[in-house]
Amino acid sequence: MIRMGESISLDIELYGEDLKGSAEHARMLARCGIISEADLTAIIDGLRTIRKEIEAGQMPLRPELEDIHTHIETRLKELIGEPAGRLHTARSRNDQVAVDTHLFVKRRSAELRSALIDLCDALLDQARKNVDVIIPSYTHMQVAQPVRFAHHLLAYFWMFLRDADRYAQAHHGADSMPLGSGAATGVNYATDREFLQAALGFERMYENSMDAVSSRDHILDYLYAGSVFSVHASRLAEEIILFTGVEFGFLELPDALTTGSSIMPQKKNPDLAELTRGKAGRVSSLLMQLLMTVKGLPLTYNRDLQEDRFSLLDSARQCSMIVDALTAMVSQFVVRPERIRRSLAQGYATATDLADALVSNKGIPFREAHHIAGRLVAICAEKGVSLEEASVDLRSSVHEALADDNFYTEAVREETSVERKVSQGGTARHRVIEQLDRAAAELEKRKAITVSAPSLDF
Amino acid sequence: MIRMGESISLDIELYGEDLKGSAEHARMLARCGIISEADLTAIIDGLRTIRKEIEAGQMPLRPELEDIHTHIETRLKELIGEPAGRLHTARSRNDQVAVDTHLFVKRRSAELRSALIDLCDALLDQARKNVDVIIPSYTHMQVAQPVRFAHHLLAYFWMFLRDADRYAQAHHGADSMPLGSGAATGVNYATDREFLQAALGFERMYENSMDAVSSRDHILDYLYAGSVFSVHASRLAEEIILFTGVEFGFLELPDALTTGSSIMPQKKNPDLAELTRGKAGRVSSLLMQLLMTVKGLPLTYNRDLQEDRFSLLDSARQCSMIVDALTAMVSQFVVRPERIRRSLAQGYATATDLADALVSNKGIPFREAHHIAGRLVAICAEKGVSLEEASVDLRSSVHEALADDNFYTEAVREETSVERKVSQGGTARHRVIEQLDRAAAELEKRKAITVSAPSLDF
Amino acid sequence: MIRMGESISLDIELYGEDLKGSAEHARMLARCGIISEADLTAIIDGLRTIRKEIEAGQMPLRPELEDIHTHIETRLKELIGEPAGRLHTARSRNDQVAVDTHLFVKRRSAELRSALIDLCDALLDQARKNVDVIIPSYTHMQVAQPVRFAHHLLAYFWMFLRDADRYAQAHHGADSMPLGSGAATGVNYATDREFLQAALGFERMYENSMDAVSSRDHILDYLYAGSVFSVHASRLAEEIILFTGVEFGFLELPDALTTGSSIMPQKKNPDLAELTRGKAGRVSSLLMQLLMTVKGLPLTYNRDLQEDRFSLLDSARQCSMIVDALTAMVSQFVVRPERIRRSLAQGYATATDLADALVSNKGIPFREAHHIAGRLVAICAEKGVSLEEASVDLRSSVHEALADDNFYTEAVREETSVERKVSQGGTARHRVIEQLDRAAAELEKRKAITVSAPSLDF
Amino acid sequence: MIRMGESISLDIELYGEDLKGSAEHARMLARCGIISEADLTAIIDGLRTIRKEIEAGQMPLRPELEDIHTHIETRLKELIGEPAGRLHTARSRNDQVAVDTHLFVKRRSAELRSALIDLCDALLDQARKNVDVIIPSYTHMQVAQPVRFAHHLLAYFWMFLRDADRYAQAHHGADSMPLGSGAATGVNYATDREFLQAALGFERMYENSMDAVSSRDHILDYLYAGSVFSVHASRLAEEIILFTGVEFGFLELPDALTTGSSIMPQKKNPDLAELTRGKAGRVSSLLMQLLMTVKGLPLTYNRDLQEDRFSLLDSARQCSMIVDALTAMVSQFVVRPERIRRSLAQGYATATDLADALVSNKGIPFREAHHIAGRLVAICAEKGVSLEEASVDLRSSVHEALADDNFYTEAVREETSVERKVSQGGTARHRVIEQLDRAAAELEKRKAITVSAPSLDF
Repeated sequence: MIRMGESISLDIELYGEDLKGSAEHARMLARCGIISEADLTAIIDGLRTIRKEIEAGQMPLRPELEDIHTHIETRLKELIGEPAGRLHTARSRNDQVAVDTHLFVKRRSAELRSALIDLCDALLDQARKNVDVIIPSYTHMQVAQPVRFAHHLLAYFWMFLRDADRYAQAHHGADSMPLGSGAATGVNYATDREFLQAALGFERMYENSMDAVSSRDHILDYLYAGSVFSVHASRLAEEIILFTGVEFGFLELPDALTTGSSIMPQKKNPDLAELTRGKAGRVSSLLMQLLMTVKGLPLTYNRDLQEDRFSLLDSARQCSMIVDALTAMVSQFVVRPERIRRSLAQGYATATDLADALVSNKGIPFREAHHIAGRLVAICAEKGVSLEEASVDLRSSVHEALADDNFYTEAVREETSVERKVSQGGTARHRVIEQLDRAAAELEKRKAITVSAPSLDF
Repeated sequence: MIRMGESISLDIELYGEDLKGSAEHARMLARCGIISEADLTAIIDGLRTIRKEIEAGQMPLRPELEDIHTHIETRLKELIGEPAGRLHTARSRNDQVAVDTHLFVKRRSAELRSALIDLCDALLDQARKNVDVIIPSYTHMQVAQPVRFAHHLLAYFWMFLRDADRYAQAHHGADSMPLGSGAATGVNYATDREFLQAALGFERMYENSMDAVSSRDHILDYLYAGSVFSVHASRLAEEIILFTGVEFGFLELPDALTTGSSIMPQKKNPDLAELTRGKAGRVSSLLMQLLMTVKGLPLTYNRDLQEDRFSLLDSARQCSMIVDALTAMVSQFVVRPERIRRSLAQGYATATDLADALVSNKGIPFREAHHIAGRLVAICAEKGVSLEEASVDLRSSVHEALADDNFYTEAVREETSVERKVSQGGTARHRVIEQLDRAAAELEKRKAITVSAPSLDF
Repeated sequence: MIRMGESISLDIELYGEDLKGSAEHARMLARCGIISEADLTAIIDGLRTIRKEIEAGQMPLRPELEDIHTHIETRLKELIGEPAGRLHTARSRNDQVAVDTHLFVKRRSAELRSALIDLCDALLDQARKNVDVIIPSYTHMQVAQPVRFAHHLLAYFWMFLRDADRYAQAHHGADSMPLGSGAATGVNYATDREFLQAALGFERMYENSMDAVSSRDHILDYLYAGSVFSVHASRLAEEIILFTGVEFGFLELPDALTTGSSIMPQKKNPDLAELTRGKAGRVSSLLMQLLMTVKGLPLTYNRDLQEDRFSLLDSARQCSMIVDALTAMVSQFVVRPERIRRSLAQGYATATDLADALVSNKGIPFREAHHIAGRLVAICAEKGVSLEEASVDLRSSVHEALADDNFYTEAVREETSVERKVSQGGTARHRVIEQLDRAAAELEKRKAITVSAPSLDF
Repeated sequence: MIRMGESISLDIELYGEDLKGSAEHARMLARCGIISEADLTAIIDGLRTIRKEIEAGQMPLRPELEDIHTHIETRLKELIGEPAGRLHTARSRNDQVAVDTHLFVKRRSAELRSALIDLCDALLDQARKNVDVIIPSYTHMQVAQPVRFAHHLLAYFWMFLRDADRYAQAHHGADSMPLGSGAATGVNYATDREFLQAALGFERMYENSMDAVSSRDHILDYLYAGSVFSVHASRLAEEIILFTGVEFGFLELPDALTTGSSIMPQKKNPDLAELTRGKAGRVSSLLMQLLMTVKGLPLTYNRDLQEDRFSLLDSARQCSMIVDALTAMVSQFVVRPERIRRSLAQGYATATDLADALVSNKGIPFREAHHIAGRLVAICAEKGVSLEEASVDLRSSVHEALADDNFYTEAVREETSVERKVSQGGTARHRVIEQLDRAAAELEKRKAITVSAPSLDF
């Protein structure tokens, strides 16, 4: 029973939320005349002492006391005696646990949102520095068309900005106060839930006591935000892993962010990126865990729900490591333009542009132009030369229009290609500058909105 | 290649979105002078003809044409010849697919939100009719304290209202136009994406062409909304299954919503509720599918993403069946008060209230009062009588305070119990009335907000 | 880096496997003349000292040393100096980690298999005691036909026996030795892997060094065994929860296996069963985690794979608690026949048998007989009487054939019903006795097969 | 009701199993004297007619008939009248569905196992052809040490061989006959289940009727086999995608297995590999679906279980496409040794070997040798030369021992490196030959074991 029922090894992390919830509950009880001022003073002093003890590492964890709530309850009784019992008037373990997890979701969502904004800042910085670095874009992991590296980085900016918004959404979802709902049906006292709502910093309260103690939606929303973020992170991680390998070689990570091999002297392993990619499975499965646990549960509180602690705590811990790892890597990678150029050349990244130029400058029909470009690529690939390196003879052998040096050289330049992508959201220089401005503006908007971690002071 | 690459068996459902996207793209091209007015007329006429053909079931599905896009493209060429080719100017399959799925998510999210609002209406109606029916609340699936059935039903009201909001959120997430992003880097034409945004009814557009073609966030948000909804639905379904069984017997479903057994004449099986519960696994796993598929994918478009069609289409289909099934069951179940009373009695639902009354009316300390009530319950259980049925002698044998008939009868009445839950959100009558009013007001707010399915007319 | 890279907080549990692997590796090196006998003695002594230190709780965990392997390596160097370094000859961290997790899976699979066999024993015991207790069987959670409780319990017996076999399968899957594969391609020494295989107790060895360091199949098989088991467990847990509630009331759990409510004196909450049911989500999601983490990883070792520790350790821990909880509950529940009889009566469990009897004894066609039984049930339900209680008048009003008292009484007896289920695997008494014998025989077969935890002594 | 309850759109695929099950059930009934020989003849003839009609596409699917079973039942009644009804004697829909899905799992598992053996054959062929092609092995996706390409391919051989075994295991799991269990408790007839077992080709039968109709273990085992296989497939697919890109360029796929881009003439997209990788998410989520659906279900049959059809049918369909796609790609890819050499050189794949050679040939201590090799790599990387290209001067500048030409050239040759990996399972030539022999032998063993699809003839 003890081994199975204990959650203290996990929920010790909730001590701040639990103490805060109890302190404000006590204040409410005193205010409503349910407990005396003397009781209130004793309780608040006791809770403050416990906070100090926990923060000093002086609270021994005892599995037989099951959870953080009982640890605190037991210690409070030791410290202040009888008034400790009166703290539990008009409250049940069910609504106490609920308020703790709501506060926790709000706190961690706010922290992760803030860390994601920092990551967006780092991406914006790197993007600004890399407007004129042209890299291949990939579709099907095959070289497609040239793109400004800033543009590529900004694609991640927008993803992570949405993730920040998803955490804001999770924060909003958890911003409803469950305390005062009792075991399930309300309490036998004329309590003041509006006071509690204000004191605990909630935007609104649960209108239904049964919903308040049995809903885990607030945790699901926050696990979902983590899942999508971790999957986004895995995409960037995959690219960092590939781009720092010798075959691509586009990026280099500083030694501080890689590990060497005890056996192979040449290795610089991108462990942080690999762990980030790997953790996407872990973070997503935490969401699955809670969905499956809640599935089919009748109202109201069922002990199954205690398993929410497992995902609740691990998701934030993992996501916080991931976001920090990404910010470090994004801020510190070094771009290697010569290796990027090699891929552009090898990938014949401007073949489409050559076809387009044959259409617009030489009046060749699209289908034929496309065919010409394709044939030229095939011959160059066979000879192992890039489009830039293709001799006049070689070009003429494919089509006479290609013999025109000025036309040809311009047509296959990467700059020409990117500058032709003039559509809104495209990779032409002025469009990227425009995008950078919008990105900065959107980021500022997010910074201006307060999504705050609830204060746990009392 | 054909068998693996085809998606037409799924994405035929997207035909309306695809036609609309093409029609507005053609209008934009004409507006920008990229195609002629004559081309435009031909294209629009052709697309309208195709729409009629599909809706009349006259479009044969051919796996070798892979997807809905190629089916329409091929048919258009048959119908109007050359101008069909020009429709693909300044557009790629990648942004075409993206705009179709964005429109689809918006449409289905709006529809499901609306269906959820109907379900909330049905719950509100039943709640209004059941304010004075008192049923046991359950914690740990054991009878806890009495609660108004209206209160119980409203717990689901609030869950499903949040689900409606989650679909509104999914709609909002998808309300960004990807069209005009080309294969990944933008297009070589001075297109007018603002026109497209307006014509297709999007609130905003993707600021980054790479993000536009590689993001599946809009589908994830909508799959997530479906997952939480389906899990909520499974909770209500579980209760309907239990409550219609003979052991509980609280509710009866009309024959039209149950099935008989070919073998057992006495059976009325709640198949709709069971299928609802079972589908929670299916709907949630669709979310997991897409998270796992997207995990680790580098930018931009990768063919893996075609697998999004599988979850995209099935989630809406399943959720739509679930919500309709719940609305039907909630509207039509019949409450059986005598069976409910049996559980209240058998479950000693007012034992807590008796203990509380001993404290407040008889001045007995809480712990002792609790002990007295517990002992009385134990003896009654042994004798097989309810608290109401306990004789004076039996009660006196536990504690003399229980001998007082007036006091005792009042203390163990369910009405007394529920009326004492006066806290905000509690189950006292005036609180439930207050809650009904708030629920109605919140529902009205939702109805007043337009979350509309995009028009697919052109 | 440290925070993200550390796994010691998890993999300290692997210390025994790691020490054993190192000890046998050292013996192999000495045997092949790669290290000296003196080195070997120093190493073995050092490893033994470390084992004692860890078991005495004297090994401080230092996150900067990342994992259990480095902790042991570092401590060994402190203890014995240079020879510690030579232990790493012809071995890499990659194959060292692999051998540890293979040993761990074998150990835990063997332990869980054994615990499942104990659970099967408990079920068999209860089944033997409950051959003559007749309960309702349920389809669609509605009372179907009567069944011997032994038969019902044996359904779980067969499930858990398959789970035991699945753990045997996981043990078999992990019974392949990866050590000696180096970082990925083998080692530069003429090592003796056959000696290692024998010394570590493996049945076979990996034939391919790249497969050896990159496969996580052994962990997946064991996580899968846990997933199915936990889902089976959740089914039994659901039934225990329902059957111990007042509405069913078929079973009672002893106080030691339930918890009371601090508020509600009448409550006996089946927390163990609820936690068991809840943990099915957790255990299953661990499998999903690893599948998702491994998805898309190129060969060979990628740091993502370190995340395997998370599922590896938690699955065994959870499953071990679940199986113990089930064994305790199954061994100790008390059956309440009078409550079971109520459900049988209320559920008209013998209505089918009455119809069958009308066919075989009264020569009434099946369809009509079914209709008669159905009508009788409907009238009884309306009047609130059971089939047994139906008066001759009431019966005659439905059909004259029902007036025959001897016929009728016999037809609606539960014993009659169960005794007619004479098909093999059915619930007639002699079939259940036959089944008990087979169950015992199958269990004996499992006990006779050795699926042993590897010895970690050295 | 109809929309939600229908499964015919899925389970039409089970028609062969359903007909076979009915035919043998009829034979058993006749044999036991429960139906007449005339009935039997009529039933068998009718079922054969229906088979022909379905195979000729002449059976219209009618959602109001719900599932394949009712379609066949209804048609049989139309065809042969009354005897059709007698076919349902001593059988229920519950055990009928169960026997169909057991037969289906056996059939598809046998087919997939066989397809996996073909894939292993293809890998073995390619491995035999590529013993002397040396490629880089990767750890952390960074070039590690040289390895024979045969060795790399064989790593996949062993994975897929285990997958074949997992399908054999799923086949074995499903090889237990549920028919004859009735709705849940057995049937009222002295049936002959041993005859049924033999006629339907099952190895054993369910010993417990309740287990027979409520277990979905056979489907889970088969979904699990598919999940691990699809994840293995995603690993190979990832490598094919990377290796066919220009940056790696190790492999080329024939045009028939790639798709071009309508826009980019240079593209050869590995769509088959991408779809394979993407489908890992789909196939794994099907397992999750069923685990979640079964979680918490009480005995016996619950309608939730109908959702098993969704995963059952899709998993086989997807896995069958994946295995065929892999076999085609593995058989047809072309190796490009010059591009492989570039990665070996660029990745300094023999740096470790150089360090080892300094130890063994030049007597330099390991740590120093490692340091020297590391420094040489760093300087070469800076100068953009490979180890082979490093001049004597450059080498001497790092350490005088490197000046020895004979020693140095030999030390940094890839052949030297692979030949030193002499440990069992290593990549030295004789070890790879040995491995090829064992692989062939293991494959032969699998071919010699019959895991057969059940005959559906009757």
